[in-house]
Amino acid sequence: MISEAGTVTLAQLQAGLEPRLDQARNEIRRLIAADFQLISDVNTHLLQMQGKMFRPTLVFLVHDATGGNDPRVVSLAAIVELIHLATLVHDDSVDHSVLRRGMPTINALFSHQVSVIMGDYLYSRAVIELVRLNDLAPLRVLSRVTNEMTVGEMRQLLAHDRLKFTEEEYDLLIRAKTASLLSGAAEVGALTASPGVREGMTRFGAYLGMAFQIIDDLLDFAESEAVTGKPSGLDLREHKVTLPLIHALPRMNDRQRARVSQLMATPEPPDDLIAEVIADVTALGGLDYARERAQQFIGKAQTELDRLAPSPARETLRASLTYVLDRRR
Amino acid sequence: MISEAGTVTLAQLQAGLEPRLDQARNEIRRLIAADFQLISDVNTHLLQMQGKMFRPTLVFLVHDATGGNDPRVVSLAAIVELIHLATLVHDDSVDHSVLRRGMPTINALFSHQVSVIMGDYLYSRAVIELVRLNDLAPLRVLSRVTNEMTVGEMRQLLAHDRLKFTEEEYDLLIRAKTASLLSGAAEVGALTASPGVREGMTRFGAYLGMAFQIIDDLLDFAESEAVTGKPSGLDLREHKVTLPLIHALPRMNDRQRARVSQLMATPEPPDDLIAEVIADVTALGGLDYARERAQQFIGKAQTELDRLAPSPARETLRASLTYVLDRRR
Repeated sequence: MISEAGTVTLAQLQAGLEPRLDQARNEIRRLIAADFQLISDVNTHLLQMQGKMFRPTLVFLVHDATGGNDPRVVSLAAIVELIHLATLVHDDSVDHSVLRRGMPTINALFSHQVSVIMGDYLYSRAVIELVRLNDLAPLRVLSRVTNEMTVGEMRQLLAHDRLKFTEEEYDLLIRAKTASLLSGAAEVGALTASPGVREGMTRFGAYLGMAFQIIDDLLDFAESEAVTGKPSGLDLREHKVTLPLIHALPRMNDRQRARVSQLMATPEPPDDLIAEVIADVTALGGLDYARERAQQFIGKAQTELDRLAPSPARETLRASLTYVLDRRR
Repeated sequence: MISEAGTVTLAQLQAGLEPRLDQARNEIRRLIAADFQLISDVNTHLLQMQGKMFRPTLVFLVHDATGGNDPRVVSLAAIVELIHLATLVHDDSVDHSVLRRGMPTINALFSHQVSVIMGDYLYSRAVIELVRLNDLAPLRVLSRVTNEMTVGEMRQLLAHDRLKFTEEEYDLLIRAKTASLLSGAAEVGALTASPGVREGMTRFGAYLGMAFQIIDDLLDFAESEAVTGKPSGLDLREHKVTLPLIHALPRMNDRQRARVSQLMATPEPPDDLIAEVIADVTALGGLDYARERAQQFIGKAQTELDRLAPSPARETLRASLTYVLDRRR
């Protein structure tokens, strides 16, 4: 599963899953269909934005690795991705983002109004489909997760401009914002497993999610636009305080700290100011520290995998940890 | 139940229900509580905005009138109001409204961001609580209703500036936007009744809801700010096309029609232009026609009540129809 260069690609993780991933894509298409033109137009655009399907991939792998034989697994994978999609639409509206995966966001292409309503449409379609599965168990998991994500979004609002944002608050933020849905994806993949296995996979998903978001925030500092498809230092540009900066701040001298304050006080900070802060954060070990934290979470996720019976799917889940840690975008 | 003047007040409808309405208010407070300061701050404001509790009132009255003995009725009433609240928060965000019930909206007092996230928070709390009731039946009703409301909101977007908006489209709009939740409120009040009675009450709620919205739109033309608490002609000011205008438009001469076009083309139309259009719509029977349509829906709702066994709650439901038809705000 791991290529010669030691890196893992998403395509490698998804190699055996393509038939079911295709079914999940078709299921999403069916779930969001509407006989109302404006909604159809937005749907067409959403389907073109087609994501990496990382969460459905996780649902399928956990399902297979826990010996699952759940006939609902494609539906569950589709619903998890649909909830993710609903969240992205509202996130972009909240952030006033104009681009997502290199394509215009719903709020940019249609309007703020359409994106607020469309997020509600997608989420309520997901709930309807969960009800149709006629089992409260996945609803219990995913309604809790959705609520946690809204609390995470609120925390995100407070992570702007605030140089006293702590690592503890950061952990709570990324747990709610990112780890909750990946944890929920793993849990619904293991719905038919024993309670102990299910709880282990729930923890696995949470650890994976923590590492996933830390690496995401790290890449924002470390990588150039050519690699990530996003301008470097985008979070800093938007005054978002993330782990590398949180770690570096107390280690900064007055001049360096003044530079960060200046950046946070500037509505559209210039590139050279961003580059200077990135250099300071890097020199003070902020990136190394973040990578170390991500590695710790990956280690905990490994431990959860070790408890499962050996299987090809378990090894692919192990490879997914390498993917999360080593990905460049 | 009907006072000497022939009118019914909301207080009269709610007279016997106050203990349960208070329980529902406490339940809402409990459901939205959060150990996160920003959410608590928004909650405090939301609870101060305290609505008329018309939907919980409907849940209780239908429950009693159908001989219900459902121990979950207070929870269901609270959840219905919570969904209503979530919808209002997002509606105000979509409309960029600054006032609601004479108080600043969440988007005005906090921010657009907070209102988008808060609507999601409230709705996901409602779903969690529905799951806790351990029964898919109310979830099935209310998830469908919530999805219908989002489609209604999309239709509302298209009811702006469009002079070719038809009465059929208007009916679809208000059915989705307003009648769906009132219908859902009536249906969850009758969850323990026989299927026939439950279906009858679902229709009753839908007819009541159609009349409710038509009267709302009519009041916007007919009443002065002193009575409704909203400036007169607010819908026209915001370029919303509603039933009185839809009826009057094909009956207008070229001069009158040009005036409407001018109004729709003016971002902030002056008061005298709005007053002229209101006068034209009134003279051409737009208000009379809308009242007639509302009366027809009330008549259909009456018929559904006639099928129920006589009871004090049934008579209060009958009085609620008079309240909807005669209310001045």
